[in-house]
Parts: sequence; structure tokens; C-alpha cells
Amino acid sequence: MTTVAFIGLGAMGRPMAANLARAQFSVRAFDVVAAARDSLLALAPQATSCVSAEDAARGADALVLMVVNADQAEAALFGAGALDALAPGASVILMATCAPKRVEDIAARVAAAGRRFIDAPVSGGVAGAQQAGLTIMVGADDAAFAAAEPLLKAMGDKVFRVGDRPGQGAAVKTVNQLLCGVHIAVAAEGLALAEKAGIDGELFLKVLGGSAAGSWMLNNRGPRMAAADPPVASAVDIFVKDLGIVLDAGRAQKAATPLAAAALQMFLAASANGFGAMDDSQVVRVYRALNGQSKDA
Amino acid sequence: MTTVAFIGLGAMGRPMAANLARAQFSVRAFDVVAAARDSLLALAPQATSCVSAEDAARGADALVLMVVNADQAEAALFGAGALDALAPGASVILMATCAPKRVEDIAARVAAAGRRFIDAPVSGGVAGAQQAGLTIMVGADDAAFAAAEPLLKAMGDKVFRVGDRPGQGAAVKTVNQLLCGVHIAVAAEGLALAEKAGIDGELFLKVLGGSAAGSWMLNNRGPRMAAADPPVASAVDIFVKDLGIVLDAGRAQKAATPLAAAALQMFLAASANGFGAMDDSQVVRVYRALNGQSKDA
Repeated sequence: MTTVAFIGLGAMGRPMAANLARAQFSVRAFDVVAAARDSLLALAPQATSCVSAEDAARGADALVLMVVNADQAEAALFGAGALDALAPGASVILMATCAPKRVEDIAARVAAAGRRFIDAPVSGGVAGAQQAGLTIMVGADDAAFAAAEPLLKAMGDKVFRVGDRPGQGAAVKTVNQLLCGVHIAVAAEGLALAEKAGIDGELFLKVLGGSAAGSWMLNNRGPRMAAADPPVASAVDIFVKDLGIVLDAGRAQKAATPLAAAALQMFLAASANGFGAMDDSQVVRVYRALNGQSKDA
Repeated sequence: MTTVAFIGLGAMGRPMAANLARAQFSVRAFDVVAAARDSLLALAPQATSCVSAEDAARGADALVLMVVNADQAEAALFGAGALDALAPGASVILMATCAPKRVEDIAARVAAAGRRFIDAPVSGGVAGAQQAGLTIMVGADDAAFAAAEPLLKAMGDKVFRVGDRPGQGAAVKTVNQLLCGVHIAVAAEGLALAEKAGIDGELFLKVLGGSAAGSWMLNNRGPRMAAADPPVASAVDIFVKDLGIVLDAGRAQKAATPLAAAALQMFLAASANGFGAMDDSQVVRVYRALNGQSKDA
């Protein structure tokens, strides 16, 4: 049985690891938060909880990293010794959202240590993770992709190999976040302008949601913009981070991203005003403040 | 039978006037382009072609303006004498895309002349016009809306009364164009960034089109961005005009529209580079030029 070390048991990592365990992989899991390890065992009793990243990785055929960012991935691989603990020729599958340049650097160090590397960020959120319905954007050479494909298909139903080089999966994920972040900010910009003209917010969303002006984000975040204090599905500060990665990628590649740059300013302002932990739809409060309206609509 | 004067027989106006004629309204139509009048008669022989705006309006119960902009609407109503030619108490239905403030000004002059005014811009394009499937965003008082509703329902199947004041329909249409323009520009920004990372454009659209990064415009304009020289569905210069209206509306209402402002710069640059009459998807050429890539991908 293929042994898979799984590091990073957050809200998405837990159901992803559980799906691997249910698919008959032998899963050895670690998270720095002990409660996250316990939660995984409640979800998938067939998984093994480990005491460190190195412990999880020891002799494993593959290592999945579903940590928060590139710093955490490097800490687990190089700092905590997970890379050297893996079986020779094992596969390292990086699924966290990282800047493409960081992914290239990590990939080079993994290759130098004699392991395969698969750049495989995801989209689809917690719901997609739970249903094994994630979109996975893969940048990897033929042999690495072939080795990882059975694992990836146990976690996602839309596995796209977007390129043969590490960093290309991250590039597509970066553009995904560029579009998502700008679509949220522009939905807020439009709603705030409509409110200023005395247009009812719910009617506005009904008229435009199904038109050529529609976006997935307008329909998903729009109603939460119109609500006073919506639950947090994804926080404002996630887009401060992710649009930061977009601008980093643009600088690294010499590519202009003027709309992403403008959108980042709005999320930064939201965070500066104390809304960083609120639902990302609440970037609308910055527009309302700019426009001299009550922040709560 | 209700007599309707219809002024402005462009690609959308012709099928709209034809739908009114088929719905048993007596349509008296005028366009400054004689060939457009002939085309309407080929489409709807029961309509009457008139020699001037005043001729079309004489004694009519309603006047529909489907001209290009507010200047043309004012020229027909006030310059060419259509307003004074209408029956007393007739309805003036303005369906062109105009800045909200211009609509308010026209509405006041129409009311002062003893006629009803209905602010009723549309979205849905030529296809929506042909199928009587337009979305119509109405700002009008109760009596004016009641008088116009049978006509509007003969042209659109999604008639939304978004407010009771003229200018509020235009406000929603303005926000519609804000979202459409930014969605086109950001799709180009994302595609150009992906291309720079060596990602295949068609694969990129396949991966993101159905995800949380999706928008109606990404799916509609994206494939035309990837094409070398696509047919013109709507021109770059239309968004130079319409995003200009968005910024005018923001200034008039004191509302910040930073993303629309950034998007307008990209369409302006496209026009400056000689792409103004090309399909609006070709704003991607500006991104490619900025990024040091071939403008044709």
C-alpha cells in the first residue's frame, strides 16, 4: 500500500487527508495544532496521527503539503526534516497557494535531494475538499505527474495538468486568485455605487446576477455584502495575502496587473480599518466609507 | 391601437421596433440612416417608415428612443421637434445608455412639456433584442410605468422597476457597464499573465471558466481574446464611452470607482493604439504590449 505523509490539517486539509485514507492510501498525518490531528482521526480512523513532520514523512512514498503558505512548506520540508525522511524517489506534492517563484525554488531543492516534485494547488474551498471535488492545477514533468495522479484523483475530480514545469500550477492558481479578488472588489464597487443612487441592493443583485454583468463572485458574495454582519466564509486578510502573491508574481515575471493592484488597495484598506478577520465580502465597507455612507449600509 | 414612434433603428433598435409592430402596436419609425429604415420594413412590413423624428412622433401615444447616446436623444426630442409633436400626455421612453444625470435633465424637460417620462435602458445585446428577451431597468413613477409596461414587455422578458425616479434605471445600467467593463479587462489581465507563464490560453479558460474565478465575460470574451482576429461583437470604443459614463456618474454622485477608473485606462490605451473599432476582447493587446509580448499572442 502506498504510504502518504500529509502535513497541514486545516479546514481543507482534514477532509483531503480523509479522502486519501478512504481511498486505501496509508495516511500518516501531522499538523502543529494537536486538535487538528485529533479531528482528522475522528473523520478517518484509518489514518495515523504523527508527532512531527519528520515522523509523518519517514519512509513515505509521497508527501502532501496543504499548509498555509510557502514559508510553512519550507519549514516542514527543510527545517523539520520531512524531505530527507522520505523514501528515495518519493513524490513531494505542494498543494498550498504559493507564489510561482517560491514554488520553483522549492522544486529545485526537492529535485536536488533526489525526490520528485508536483506543483498542485487547488480551488473549490472546504465544500470541494469534503466532496473530493476540488479543481487541481498541476505543473509537473511526465514521471512526477504519473506518480501523483492517483492521489490527486482521490482529492479532486477536475485534475488539470496545465504545464510540465513546477510553478505553472501556481501560475494558474495565481491568476485564479487575481480574478476572484478583482471580482469581489468590483462587485462591492458596483453595489456601493448603486446604493448611493438609492437602488435597493437585493433588487440590484437580482437584476445583474443573471446578466452579462454576472460573475460567480457577484452571486456568491453579493448577498453577503448586502447583509449586515455575515458569517465568515473566507476572510478579507486571505485576499490581502493572495493579491499580494498576484503582485509578486507580476513583478517576478514582468507583467502588469493594474486591476489586481487597485483591488489589493481596497482589501488592504479593509484590513487597516479593522475588517481583516471579517468575511471578504466586507470590502464593501471600504467603498461605503469612501462614499460617505454608513459602513454597515 | 396605440401609436408608437420609434427613433433609432440600429442593430438593436430594428428588432425591438419589429417586436412592437408584431405585438399590434402601430409603429412609426425613423432613423437618420435611410438604409436602416428600409431594413426595418423588410423585417416588419406592418411598420411605417417616417421622414423625420417629428414626422414619426406626430400625434403618437408613446415615443421610444433607442439612439446611441444622450446627445442624440436630446437632438431628436428638442432639436428635431419630436417632443412637441407627441399627443398631450404621451409617454417618452428613453432606452439608450446615458449617464444618470443626463437622464434626469431630459426627464425634467419632458415633464415640463406635459409628457410622461420613462427611464428604461436595456441589456442583452442584439440576440436579446431579436428574441424579445431584453433585460429592461426602469426608473419611473407609477403612472408612467403603468403606461409604458405593455410596450416594454413586448421588447423584454425581464422588466425590472428598479426605482420610481428617472435616472435610477440609468444608474443600474451604469453599474451593469461598470461590471461588464471591469470583467472584460480583468479577464485580459489574467490571460496575459497566464500567457507570460507559458500557460496555454484555451486550457486556462477551461480550468477557470467554471470555477469561482468565472464570469459571464470570461466565458464570452475569453475565447475571442485567445483568437487572432475575432469578429466584432461589440467594439473597444463602446467601453471607452460606457466606462466614461460610469466615471461621470461616480463624479456626479461623489462615489469612488477605482477599478472602473483603472479599466477605462486600458480601453483608452487600446483605442489609442488603433484598436478602437476592434472587438472589445482585444483590450488584451494592450496587456500583451505592456508585458513585452506580441500583441497578437
